[in-house]
Amino acid sequence: MKKIAIIFHSAHGHTEFIARQVQQGAREVEGIEAELVRAEDLRRTPEALLDHDAYILGSPTYLGGVSGPFKSFMDATGGLWAGQRLRGRLAAGFTVSSLPAGDKQSTLLSMFVFAMQHGLVWVGNPILPEQHRGVPYDEAANRLGSWSGLMAQAGHASAPDAFVPGDLKTARLFGRHVAQSLQRWHGPERVEIDRLGSESAAPVAEAAS
Amino acid sequence: MKKIAIIFHSAHGHTEFIARQVQQGAREVEGIEAELVRAEDLRRTPEALLDHDAYILGSPTYLGGVSGPFKSFMDATGGLWAGQRLRGRLAAGFTVSSLPAGDKQSTLLSMFVFAMQHGLVWVGNPILPEQHRGVPYDEAANRLGSWSGLMAQAGHASAPDAFVPGDLKTARLFGRHVAQSLQRWHGPERVEIDRLGSESAAPVAEAAS
Amino acid sequence: MKKIAIIFHSAHGHTEFIARQVQQGAREVEGIEAELVRAEDLRRTPEALLDHDAYILGSPTYLGGVSGPFKSFMDATGGLWAGQRLRGRLAAGFTVSSLPAGDKQSTLLSMFVFAMQHGLVWVGNPILPEQHRGVPYDEAANRLGSWSGLMAQAGHASAPDAFVPGDLKTARLFGRHVAQSLQRWHGPERVEIDRLGSESAAPVAEAAS
Amino acid sequence: MKKIAIIFHSAHGHTEFIARQVQQGAREVEGIEAELVRAEDLRRTPEALLDHDAYILGSPTYLGGVSGPFKSFMDATGGLWAGQRLRGRLAAGFTVSSLPAGDKQSTLLSMFVFAMQHGLVWVGNPILPEQHRGVPYDEAANRLGSWSGLMAQAGHASAPDAFVPGDLKTARLFGRHVAQSLQRWHGPERVEIDRLGSESAAPVAEAAS
Repeated sequence: MKKIAIIFHSAHGHTEFIARQVQQGAREVEGIEAELVRAEDLRRTPEALLDHDAYILGSPTYLGGVSGPFKSFMDATGGLWAGQRLRGRLAAGFTVSSLPAGDKQSTLLSMFVFAMQHGLVWVGNPILPEQHRGVPYDEAANRLGSWSGLMAQAGHASAPDAFVPGDLKTARLFGRHVAQSLQRWHGPERVEIDRLGSESAAPVAEAAS
Repeated sequence: MKKIAIIFHSAHGHTEFIARQVQQGAREVEGIEAELVRAEDLRRTPEALLDHDAYILGSPTYLGGVSGPFKSFMDATGGLWAGQRLRGRLAAGFTVSSLPAGDKQSTLLSMFVFAMQHGLVWVGNPILPEQHRGVPYDEAANRLGSWSGLMAQAGHASAPDAFVPGDLKTARLFGRHVAQSLQRWHGPERVEIDRLGSESAAPVAEAAS
Repeated sequence: MKKIAIIFHSAHGHTEFIARQVQQGAREVEGIEAELVRAEDLRRTPEALLDHDAYILGSPTYLGGVSGPFKSFMDATGGLWAGQRLRGRLAAGFTVSSLPAGDKQSTLLSMFVFAMQHGLVWVGNPILPEQHRGVPYDEAANRLGSWSGLMAQAGHASAPDAFVPGDLKTARLFGRHVAQSLQRWHGPERVEIDRLGSESAAPVAEAAS
Repeated sequence: MKKIAIIFHSAHGHTEFIARQVQQGAREVEGIEAELVRAEDLRRTPEALLDHDAYILGSPTYLGGVSGPFKSFMDATGGLWAGQRLRGRLAAGFTVSSLPAGDKQSTLLSMFVFAMQHGLVWVGNPILPEQHRGVPYDEAANRLGSWSGLMAQAGHASAPDAFVPGDLKTARLFGRHVAQSLQRWHGPERVEIDRLGSESAAPVAEAAS
């Protein structure tokens, strides 16, 4: 059984709702457990990340980046970073905002940079926008056009579940894709990958500030 | 008198030390006040931003982005964003980490995206690296090579003031440059700039999450 | 008279069409000349950039970045960079693709980084999306939600002028905003800004490759 | 035998020299072929990409992004994109410039966004900077501090092979890491991954411009 942690922050429920769709998609894949974890909780117990094989990061986009609570969770992983203890696992990301573009790409890029610092391998959202094949816009997978990760758009001041069918479909496909990629990454006779540049186990202190 | 707020978060004093160099450079310019403000304090009173004409944002780079406390300050400006109340002022940014590159550029880019959402005009760090002209590396302005904003490098686990002379010089030049740009932006007979797409004064709620 | 160069590449006419809307908006401002310039032409005569006070960069988004011809124009400015000869002028950017998000933000960010290397000051697209105030989506200014620069969306395989009214309106507001910002930047008694770190006039060769 | 294409552009030989170190590192891994391919050549025959299982992208950083020739190669893959024919393969990236930071991170991010559009899985450069463990700076792996991909710094106007030992070591470790990741990705009984949102084989035309 391979385990995915879907780590999210959600102030008003929208991001959590999308997280649940991603979870549902991941659970469609045999041999995969997918658990929802609140970033605020994980901030206090970052070592719990060691129990998972892949991480799907989810945050609303606030002013072009992840939310403050989500960033505080990220910062809490500094000790794991210093020992590169998550190295070689998988990561992916998603974000939610009230606009079609809405600077969501910069949020996904910041999740990617974080994942790279931890030595994770990044899986995207490889879906050709279905409206280009005649599917109605609101029902189309990847209708917003995002490959680095999943984007979803919540209507302004809307209910937490007020997403169009296309975004729900995309979220489930995305969750399934990450889960399948994880299965593939853990093929039964996989090559062990070296731990580079970290022969010494001594943890180093975090970056200056 | 035009006023610059140098808004920073600093866990161990390094970023604060650089902030003071930037302040010193800004104060070399006549008619400029430059004040240091802690992001944690401003988070509680974001309306205080209205008292300033320019913002210099400063954060350590933690895992490729601004620190959690700095992002939480950013998020607290959502109400000002909804009314675009900072629009047309100037902004610039700086960041500190323990490595030469160290994913500091993504930190500066996230500050830029934030500033753009507020309708600010961005001033960079337009300095040709002086080592290319024969200045010793540690004494050279912009030795690391960053134009989008200021980068400084603190020795690993070093004292808060343990920066090479080149980084201190760059910080002062950068502060002076932002201050001069602010003076220019506020020429005595400047054209008033329209407030676009925000004729209605009604503030809108923040983005869904 | 202050002069803006709207520098664009357009393979099928969509980006050119948006460039014309931007030009029209800029020309609404008294004392401003706004000229369209093809990136392919300027690539051969980059020194022509010296004749302008501001640059509005426009490219389609191809696979998440500016087009190859546009990047080749950018590269041709290396000599101007080495002397920082464009320093202190204004810049802004726009991009066009067939999807709402479509990785257009990374295109705008790459234009921003380029502008910063040249010491330019960046002006964004500070417009609150009007659909949040009740304007129909297709007619709303900044409906896609982009502040770092202008985004426009062309229908897939559509005619070069097949943009919704909202995108045309946004383009004109954006052009006017850059033009007004330029007027303000050139107030009659403006402070001269130092040339930092480039006292020597000797041009340096371009970066290693 | 699994095949890696190291795709590079190099105007003066520096990027090619690093590409050769990456190749050498990749060849240390059993069952891996690693071939150098010039971006200019591949631009004319992009279908040749189908013969490889992983792509390591290499470009100098010119003004904060990949070079014009490298971007033109990227654009030439539009037809492969439309059919998502490279989907599920691996990708990684490296870049070279004359400065420690030098906006090389934005170059790597643009390679990442490109790879995501093609549905590739991204492998980084997961090496803790060795100078933090006492290795002399010039000999330290990942001394510049880059995780999203490999960075190398060539002395200004230097010979094509004038890199410090640390950068050569990093390049070889990086090549080996990508090769090992490719072996792992192709474990003998790997799960097949669905082709999402592209059930129809009909290629779509490229994005509007």
